[in-house]
Amino acid sequence: MTADDPIGVFDSGLGGLTVVRAIREALPSERLVYLGDTARVPYGTRSAHTILRYARGCARHLARDGIKLLVVACNTVSAVALPMLRVELDVPVLGVIGPGARAGVAATRSHRLGVIATPGTVASGAYPRAVASVSSRTEVFQRAAPLLVPLVEEGWTDGEVPRLVVDRYLEPLIAADIDSLVLGCTHYPLLADVIRDRVAAHSPHPVTVVDSAAATATELEELIGERGMARTGEGSLRLMVTDRPDQFADEAARFLGASLEGLTVEAIDL
Amino acid sequence: MTADDPIGVFDSGLGGLTVVRAIREALPSERLVYLGDTARVPYGTRSAHTILRYARGCARHLARDGIKLLVVACNTVSAVALPMLRVELDVPVLGVIGPGARAGVAATRSHRLGVIATPGTVASGAYPRAVASVSSRTEVFQRAAPLLVPLVEEGWTDGEVPRLVVDRYLEPLIAADIDSLVLGCTHYPLLADVIRDRVAAHSPHPVTVVDSAAATATELEELIGERGMARTGEGSLRLMVTDRPDQFADEAARFLGASLEGLTVEAIDL
Repeated sequence: MTADDPIGVFDSGLGGLTVVRAIREALPSERLVYLGDTARVPYGTRSAHTILRYARGCARHLARDGIKLLVVACNTVSAVALPMLRVELDVPVLGVIGPGARAGVAATRSHRLGVIATPGTVASGAYPRAVASVSSRTEVFQRAAPLLVPLVEEGWTDGEVPRLVVDRYLEPLIAADIDSLVLGCTHYPLLADVIRDRVAAHSPHPVTVVDSAAATATELEELIGERGMARTGEGSLRLMVTDRPDQFADEAARFLGASLEGLTVEAIDL
Repeated sequence: MTADDPIGVFDSGLGGLTVVRAIREALPSERLVYLGDTARVPYGTRSAHTILRYARGCARHLARDGIKLLVVACNTVSAVALPMLRVELDVPVLGVIGPGARAGVAATRSHRLGVIATPGTVASGAYPRAVASVSSRTEVFQRAAPLLVPLVEEGWTDGEVPRLVVDRYLEPLIAADIDSLVLGCTHYPLLADVIRDRVAAHSPHPVTVVDSAAATATELEELIGERGMARTGEGSLRLMVTDRPDQFADEAARFLGASLEGLTVEAIDL
């Protein structure tokens, strides 16, 4: 593999494009290939066995094209399949949970760290494990927030409904007196403003909101620098989806924070 | 096939159990076999091609065991795959959209009929088509309500959040002056109380709420009677799922409106 090879990024759907957005901001010279397994989204409700099988399919498809590094831009897959992917692939594999957990530990002063995520990610225990591996004294308070993904997909990212829903999910975390909160799902950056507003409204002290997409881009930048794999010149982005490329554009643009104009979107079979 | 053979029922997930519930109430002597394709739920975001393939897999699995009739307890599949299933199977096939549409037409006096459903069902145009086939003068006002399924799955079926979400979805239908509203998704019966409450709060005149699960059970009862296929004796229910049978029980019991105690739940591969 060479520095000029692309970085592969995959997710069960489109949410991982918030990670692509953060990577493009941090590393504008890289070539990125994104695979969204939109035919089988969401993975969060599948068994570990099924998730492993799907993740292997996505990773192999990207690896076949020649990539220098793989980013698993999906909390569910990061929670379940990272060790397997690291064994099976010849390139470095970066998930989103490790960077999010490490950034959370770096942010907390009181060592009371909140995490909101999908039910699957919470049940996996991946965030508490990742936090424990870097800080033995940080206590993690998790809350599954299953309505946030559909709220983002519906585009209801401000107003009374998201405020009430976010309040309900954050209430036990604020009661637990957290001082930092990790957004443990790739959809949540689109609700970051509401979440910041609600913790500010309810917490007696400031709470740092940690975006795991941004944390992943930061660690990726370090990893590429350390290994001398940084590319120069103009970057690019190629998008592949497994279903409904025609319906893909609007939602993708919201996650990506940019128009898809001039980008290739391919439908592939896995 | 004989009257003693079971009735097959399938859905992309567990929502179809609201149809099973209605069937068990209407036809307590029937043997029912339910297949929930929980490994691939939801179908609503898939392409028509993918839905056809999945539906064929579910239907064939049930048909292999010998069924006297197939109920497609899924709006998405009913919208897309019913003609194909009718051609391919040797048994009568009943969907949920036809019965819901016919019950809606029977209920409306003003011929202004509302339908709430998932985005996929709305986009398919299946309800307006089904209504048009029985009533040329009934106008159909549709509204996609993507947050209702996750609200039901989260168990938030009363309180402020579902009230606000339902209000937002119903607002254009009430503005269109509907007098009847079809619940065009198998999850929605669990929100029927909130929905009835909100139309009563906002509509200037009574609005009849039509549950397509109940309408399907009523048509099934008629169909079985006409064909002399009714069974006598004690009925039964067998459940099959394609993923996570261990996580299945609580949610299934909510949709079924009854405990799963004493019922067999099998994990199958499709």
